[in-house]
Amino acid sequence: MRKSWFITFEGPDGSGKTTVSTMVYERLLRDGFDVILTREPGGIDIAEQIRKVILDPANTAMDDRTEALLYAASRRQHLVEKVFPALKDGKIVLCDRFLDSSLAYQGAGRGLGMDEVLKINQFAIDQCMPDKTLYLDLDAETGLNRIQSRSFKDRLDQESIDFHYRVVNGYKEIVERFKERMIVIDASQCAEKVAEDAYQKILEMIQ
Amino acid sequence: MRKSWFITFEGPDGSGKTTVSTMVYERLLRDGFDVILTREPGGIDIAEQIRKVILDPANTAMDDRTEALLYAASRRQHLVEKVFPALKDGKIVLCDRFLDSSLAYQGAGRGLGMDEVLKINQFAIDQCMPDKTLYLDLDAETGLNRIQSRSFKDRLDQESIDFHYRVVNGYKEIVERFKERMIVIDASQCAEKVAEDAYQKILEMIQ
Repeated sequence: MRKSWFITFEGPDGSGKTTVSTMVYERLLRDGFDVILTREPGGIDIAEQIRKVILDPANTAMDDRTEALLYAASRRQHLVEKVFPALKDGKIVLCDRFLDSSLAYQGAGRGLGMDEVLKINQFAIDQCMPDKTLYLDLDAETGLNRIQSRSFKDRLDQESIDFHYRVVNGYKEIVERFKERMIVIDASQCAEKVAEDAYQKILEMIQ
Repeated sequence: MRKSWFITFEGPDGSGKTTVSTMVYERLLRDGFDVILTREPGGIDIAEQIRKVILDPANTAMDDRTEALLYAASRRQHLVEKVFPALKDGKIVLCDRFLDSSLAYQGAGRGLGMDEVLKINQFAIDQCMPDKTLYLDLDAETGLNRIQSRSFKDRLDQESIDFHYRVVNGYKEIVERFKERMIVIDASQCAEKVAEDAYQKILEMIQ
């Protein structure tokens, strides 16, 4: 009874998405599941080109809406070239960040509005919502502390702190709004425990 | 009683938009109006970078939805950096192609659906609809003949011909749907007469 699954990992900065998704991926792989781990732009040439425009530090004139449209474009291409083929092959696709990141960062963080950002992302994903999303739940303060201890020199300014709080609040709204899709994991635990919880939730789902 | 106006020129390939908008622009300039003529990406650096991704012939894997999102992103940046400042300065802005081109080419031509493409463009323009749109009306056959006589070597294949018909039909639907915004000009006439008609319509509007 082979079946494809599209599972995304979400959470604010400091919640440990990358570490945890990698640990879960490796364990599923050892268990013999047909699984891939990806994140946008995921080595897709066109998506990389788009990401380069977004991240070019010279592009200080970049408007917030332009940025949101470019993220949606990069997401679309990554889906078409990497996620769709893997799902079609019956694989489990783990994706580190997906549309909820745009809702939280562009919609709530930048203040564009979640409904607005959802609309352009619905166009981008064209019905391909994740089957389930593991939300690594962490309060804003703990996330901030983790980010700051990561790089001492890179102290956050007030604007970054306010932005971080808006993102965390955005995620809370998303968890409420998409209840059936979201699985909330306590990300205040150590990475091993978070990964264990995430792994168990995925096993329950796919077996 | 100085007032800014945002006026777009639309029409299928072969309808003479570029020639006509240039003639109208030069005449308004001679009349002493504070007017600019632009077209996307309009020399805006970020919009040019985005356009480069769209038009790179190596990007054969470009998905239609990615393309539509990139056009919307380029449109947004051109608006923010070029059109908004000019309108704020009380200028008349003439724009050769705008959102209706995406509705006709991506929505109808590529078959993504006009409502879908309209949604992402509404996000991009954020209420800044053109005050008026001059639609250079030309039947599909005449447009095709003009394109083909332009470049003899570049004979169109059946796919291009079908695409052209879908675009023209898309424009017909747009004219019907946005009646109050659209001014239809008979583009089967010579360019001088089309420009004269367009010029008179604009004068009626702005005076």
